Amino acid sequence: MAAKRKSKACPALYADRIKRVRAEMEAKKLDGYLVQDRKDQYWLTGFTGEDGYVLVTKKEVALLTDGRFDEAANIQAPWAVKVLREQRTPERTAKELKARRLKRVGFDPDHFTVADFTGTRKAARPVQLIAASGLVLGMRQCKDKGEVDAIVKAIRVSEKAFKKTAKWIKVGMTESDIAAKLAYEMQRLGAKDVSFPTIVAVGPNGALPHYETGDRKVTKNSPILIDWGAEVDWYVSDLTRMIWPGSIPRELAKVNKIVTEAHDAAIAAIKPGVTAHEIDAIARKIITKAGYGSCFNHATGHGMGLDVHEAPRVGKGTNVKLEPGMVITIEPGIYLPGKGGVRLEDDILVTETGSQVLSELPL
Amino acid sequence: MAAKRKSKACPALYADRIKRVRAEMEAKKLDGYLVQDRKDQYWLTGFTGEDGYVLVTKKEVALLTDGRFDEAANIQAPWAVKVLREQRTPERTAKELKARRLKRVGFDPDHFTVADFTGTRKAARPVQLIAASGLVLGMRQCKDKGEVDAIVKAIRVSEKAFKKTAKWIKVGMTESDIAAKLAYEMQRLGAKDVSFPTIVAVGPNGALPHYETGDRKVTKNSPILIDWGAEVDWYVSDLTRMIWPGSIPRELAKVNKIVTEAHDAAIAAIKPGVTAHEIDAIARKIITKAGYGSCFNHATGHGMGLDVHEAPRVGKGTNVKLEPGMVITIEPGIYLPGKGGVRLEDDILVTETGSQVLSELPL
Repeated sequence: MAAKRKSKACPALYADRIKRVRAEMEAKKLDGYLVQDRKDQYWLTGFTGEDGYVLVTKKEVALLTDGRFDEAANIQAPWAVKVLREQRTPERTAKELKARRLKRVGFDPDHFTVADFTGTRKAARPVQLIAASGLVLGMRQCKDKGEVDAIVKAIRVSEKAFKKTAKWIKVGMTESDIAAKLAYEMQRLGAKDVSFPTIVAVGPNGALPHYETGDRKVTKNSPILIDWGAEVDWYVSDLTRMIWPGSIPRELAKVNKIVTEAHDAAIAAIKPGVTAHEIDAIARKIITKAGYGSCFNHATGHGMGLDVHEAPRVGKGTNVKLEPGMVITIEPGIYLPGKGGVRLEDDILVTETGSQVLSELPL
Repeated sequence: MAAKRKSKACPALYADRIKRVRAEMEAKKLDGYLVQDRKDQYWLTGFTGEDGYVLVTKKEVALLTDGRFDEAANIQAPWAVKVLREQRTPERTAKELKARRLKRVGFDPDHFTVADFTGTRKAARPVQLIAASGLVLGMRQCKDKGEVDAIVKAIRVSEKAFKKTAKWIKVGMTESDIAAKLAYEMQRLGAKDVSFPTIVAVGPNGALPHYETGDRKVTKNSPILIDWGAEVDWYVSDLTRMIWPGSIPRELAKVNKIVTEAHDAAIAAIKPGVTAHEIDAIARKIITKAGYGSCFNHATGHGMGLDVHEAPRVGKGTNVKLEPGMVITIEPGIYLPGKGGVRLEDDILVTETGSQVLSELPL
């Protein structure tokens, strides 16, 4: 009855990452670290089950999951210690911590609910739970070659699908029709899913930066704002383009020019050592100077990788310095209530000497 | 520049729900309740912005969100007090609690991270934060007529799309092709999105209850397990069907009969007053008696509404009694590693006198 198993040895990729986590644990005097975020878990072990914790100790890596993901655990991380439990209760988690006689177990307060934490802490005594925010997420900021390749793959899929969809769009189609077609083409090209709900905003709907795609129909002269992404091999893309089916309304043409300028200037400034805040300020200054500062009400960009939104946020107050391997979006926009909006978004890799725009779709 | 706004009066639907929350607040001696879960927020106010809290006090309902969702708040909940803030920091949330001179503010420990909670509690002093688990979610368990209608709409969309897709499937297509087609058809029929990543599992892949759709190809004789759902007007469907393209392997045919029996018996037992645990036991007993107890490693079903997985869980240990208005899935399965699996899933409304199977697709 047994299916074929992969080798029991931990692949070098994961062994290296686990080593880095253990070094952080050592620095924080932790003898255990409980990973709750699913993407963090994937990054550390390759395990993709929906339910589970990864528990890293000095000696072992344990997957706490349930029967639904038994086979997945066997196939994806046969080298890890598998702990199947019927229900995901804090008491059950605590039992594993106590059985290992751990003293100080770290956890990520951004991915642990108050309910889970309170219950686990109580049941795990005398094991102490220590908040260690973003321990794995921090490591995920700089991507290795394999990760960049995966991101590029996701970008290429989304670009090809966009081109196909753009040609297919006709007057009378709804925003939802376009989103459906785009998702379909991405999936046929190898995407597992969209990386977030596609935004297709026709005409005045473009004025809502996070518009929910609806039933507005394409007309001859209404601009179409499309913000979309693909998830391929767990890594994502995130792009925004404008489609101008006919003549461009005058103010939007003006605004399009300003946004293009802000987009280009922000990208040109990307290099190691510059802070995320400075990149944001460059785009913001151009838009503010042109008189549209109050119409640009979100950050210029964000980190991207396994999650669509990762650290660093490219916005006011982010003092993180850019480092080689970071992948960030640059996506300035101007929104004119009742009239529409323009946003242009690309995905950029920070390199040793500057940057490389990973997306290739013309603006 | 201002877009047209809806009336400032709170619609009766939301007024009633907010009244129920205030009654619970009164019972728990709370003068505020902070709603973090997005679906809870939508249920209470109609607001769909990705970022925000809803703060219910004795006198007002405030939406704490950011500039990206300004227009959405204006359109969806113009009757609520809108608080736009640049960043979603605990300090900023605390400021709003203090400004209202609140004393005891409830929150849902299942939807508040340790980081947010710790930060908010510290900055909000002397305001006390009191855990009140599932206060809104509990109210969401029993659906009103409008909600049941929305769920039925989502079910119909997913059923129609399934029929179209089933006809379209050909030998040589991949699991991903099928998932893409199904999503596309659902979206063309009015779905905003799939309600969860579609599972298309060909042949032995069916042995993983939560298989991630991949590249396995349809062959003449491999069964196809499809677990899918649509999201329409924020409410969801969740169904599973088997497609048998050719002759049915002997053991799977046997197993299919057992699962059908378990499925039918569990549904037949649904009525007010029966516990969720009892429903699970009925399905489990049939499968266990047939010798496949260890191959049915998940709960028989779950509540469904705005979320695909809501209370009550229809599994061991859930002593919740079924009540009219609850919508639950019934989805027993048998999984044979290396060979494949069978799962059959329908969506059922608990009525005053018994139950109504909302899904209409033949098994």
